Amino acid sequence: MNEKKAIVVGAGLVGTLWAILLAKRGYTVEVYERRGDIRKADIVGGRSINLAMSTRGWKALEKAGIKDKIREVAIPMPGRKMHSTSGELIFQPYSSDGQSIYSVSRAGLNLELMNIADQFDNVHFFFHHKCHGLDTRQITLSFEDEHGQVKEVSAPLIFGTDGAYSAIRSSLQRTPRFNYAQQFLDYGYKELRIPPSPEGDFAMDKNALHIWPRGRFMLIGLPNQDKSFTGTLFLPFEGAVSFENLNTDEEIMNFFEEYFPDAIPVMPELLHDFHNNPTSPLVTIRCSPWQYKNRVLLMGDASHAIVPFYGQGMNSGFEDCSLLDDLCDRYEENWDAIIPAFNNTRITDANAVADLALRNFIEMRDLVSDPQFLLRKKIEKHLEQKFPDQFLSVYSMVTFSHIPYHEALEETSAQDKLFQKILAIEDIEEKWNSTAVDHLFLDWIEQQNLVAQ
Amino acid sequence: MNEKKAIVVGAGLVGTLWAILLAKRGYTVEVYERRGDIRKADIVGGRSINLAMSTRGWKALEKAGIKDKIREVAIPMPGRKMHSTSGELIFQPYSSDGQSIYSVSRAGLNLELMNIADQFDNVHFFFHHKCHGLDTRQITLSFEDEHGQVKEVSAPLIFGTDGAYSAIRSSLQRTPRFNYAQQFLDYGYKELRIPPSPEGDFAMDKNALHIWPRGRFMLIGLPNQDKSFTGTLFLPFEGAVSFENLNTDEEIMNFFEEYFPDAIPVMPELLHDFHNNPTSPLVTIRCSPWQYKNRVLLMGDASHAIVPFYGQGMNSGFEDCSLLDDLCDRYEENWDAIIPAFNNTRITDANAVADLALRNFIEMRDLVSDPQFLLRKKIEKHLEQKFPDQFLSVYSMVTFSHIPYHEALEETSAQDKLFQKILAIEDIEEKWNSTAVDHLFLDWIEQQNLVAQ
Repeated sequence: MNEKKAIVVGAGLVGTLWAILLAKRGYTVEVYERRGDIRKADIVGGRSINLAMSTRGWKALEKAGIKDKIREVAIPMPGRKMHSTSGELIFQPYSSDGQSIYSVSRAGLNLELMNIADQFDNVHFFFHHKCHGLDTRQITLSFEDEHGQVKEVSAPLIFGTDGAYSAIRSSLQRTPRFNYAQQFLDYGYKELRIPPSPEGDFAMDKNALHIWPRGRFMLIGLPNQDKSFTGTLFLPFEGAVSFENLNTDEEIMNFFEEYFPDAIPVMPELLHDFHNNPTSPLVTIRCSPWQYKNRVLLMGDASHAIVPFYGQGMNSGFEDCSLLDDLCDRYEENWDAIIPAFNNTRITDANAVADLALRNFIEMRDLVSDPQFLLRKKIEKHLEQKFPDQFLSVYSMVTFSHIPYHEALEETSAQDKLFQKILAIEDIEEKWNSTAVDHLFLDWIEQQNLVAQ
Repeated sequence: MNEKKAIVVGAGLVGTLWAILLAKRGYTVEVYERRGDIRKADIVGGRSINLAMSTRGWKALEKAGIKDKIREVAIPMPGRKMHSTSGELIFQPYSSDGQSIYSVSRAGLNLELMNIADQFDNVHFFFHHKCHGLDTRQITLSFEDEHGQVKEVSAPLIFGTDGAYSAIRSSLQRTPRFNYAQQFLDYGYKELRIPPSPEGDFAMDKNALHIWPRGRFMLIGLPNQDKSFTGTLFLPFEGAVSFENLNTDEEIMNFFEEYFPDAIPVMPELLHDFHNNPTSPLVTIRCSPWQYKNRVLLMGDASHAIVPFYGQGMNSGFEDCSLLDDLCDRYEENWDAIIPAFNNTRITDANAVADLALRNFIEMRDLVSDPQFLLRKKIEKHLEQKFPDQFLSVYSMVTFSHIPYHEALEETSAQDKLFQKILAIEDIEEKWNSTAVDHLFLDWIEQQNLVAQ
């Protein structure tokens, strides 16, 4: 590689962060973005689920030098607050030692990242450039600007961070032996705002991720800086209780009165939002390879879009950046080594977090209100505290560690077996922190270690 | 539906057969095909694995009225003939009562189907028409003819039988909530001809599917009408023993001398074929839904391309035609009922046969030379003969019955459990048809029936 130059396609969260990390290494980076400069327009509203920043995301922000700045405006959520139909609230901490996930505004974060990128002389943004795809023979990109002018550009390195509907991935999909899958849930989501209270304060406890779990569907709420919450309803598209059967004001209100009565007073704009906000689909995208001829690499949603139920979409995209940056150190910026190494390890982890996110939907909508599940969570925390070097719940692995996602996924069934035994202890409700539990755990650990040897 | 008119895109095996069945019902059918009329050109050579016609395929040909005609030129293969590296041959029948699968020429079959279709005044072929896709708003198709002229056409019913790289499916892939996956094996295949012997006869036993199973790879051979065999080598693209390491004449000959010594004398054109025939990929394609607004329906490889290892690619496409034809009777040609009914049941079966085909690759390349596996096959035949109303092997279900593929797939693990027990009987090699086997079988059947209740 003679010239230290790269093109990044897509100025979203992952693209902008990756441009910063490349710029810090001295690369000239051209960032092409379909939309206009979000810093010059009104904040883009409406269609993105709030972001829950956790350990993997923070690490990448630290590398980019803006962890502290974002941390100041992020709202800590140390646990879930579950709302029952009768209005009861149960708080369930996410970790045994008070760790939080953090509610962050997608638009605000993107804007901060762009401002940081702009401080580098070697980063150049090209807005209003729609990518028409990659010519895989010449390895050139074609963009159409706002005047309809089409131009061809190229660079020794091209990074596709153009999201779930990536144009670059579309081009790669036509190359031989490219594996690709797009899989939609039968569920859609709709954003419903919970504005600040008439007194100008948060309408609910701001330090929690609020969940109304209802078995086949759920409502969640995440706090925003402006003291509102973004509520999101996840519901089947079709069926008895579904979006297709919620059309009239009456149908919508009856549905909320039956399932989410305590949300009605905090959602004064409910009917307006319900009628005007889109019902959006939930897609999982997987592909392989992510790279082409050691010169083109897909990152973030472009290569691994996942459903939002583990809060790992942005975190996994940011971890792509951290890991790739680490590989730059390890292989001294030899991209013929870096790109295959990333491709060979990261795809497995991306598939694992895709699976974990799909499973967590069941946990969120279904299990968080199940007494057995709540008890298991309590015992998990007991074990994390009593055996800190020997036990970490799968949730903590994913959310509060840098353990590769595929290891967390593999651990899932092992931990399920452990808790099957523990929950079968007679009177476990009273004995959740007894020596009987500890003995079962220590037996299990011993067996795990045997298997690992 | 006022007008009895349909468009079929793609004049391959499934498209032409389906055009015939529609024509028999009085529909005016326009069949658009990218290539020229194969009846006016030399037979297309080279790139398709031979077809093994079995029960599902025959049924559809019977409906089209050409079963007997094809049967006359098809070559029965009542079993597999396994070639060891030392040249030993073992014959393994496919069924307990002498049933065969049949080697059929793809081009010859397609040609016959076209001739039958042409006998209907209401079938019109349009060759040299390349489909540019479906406009999903207008439900119109756009075709480019050989003069570069583009025209738009439509009909109340549109059937996409345009193969694994379907243009219609590509258009549907851009509609909301369309699930799609293309998955390639790490294996490629290459055709290698076994011409007639110098005496003008078949160079090997013609009434068998020849297999040279070698664990991680294999060679197969199917007989042709002209007394040649089409040999096909399945081998990894990369790795120690792989296509990427077979480049020079010496490398190719060393490889054949080590693994397929008895094939060398019957392949006088080996080096020429190896260098000149392409190495082709093996893809599995799944999608859902297969239909759009009860007016557009994907069939055959366009909706479910599978790997060739169960010989069910064409058979499953033909079964699409039979089942759809049956639904036309059941719902009196009410397409608003037929199309959803087909979509709701057939996708599950297509996914099942895709899985079965992937599993059978392991069986063919790996297990057919394993003594335990051969013993299991022998016991399966014993059980099929002794308990004809109670036992049918999965292979027979798929190949010699009309049982839905998903039921055959579900039966796989149940039968695996049965044979785990049977093969654990002491001295089972001698006791393969003993009462001990029968007792285990009868216990298993009892349990199966309990589960089913």
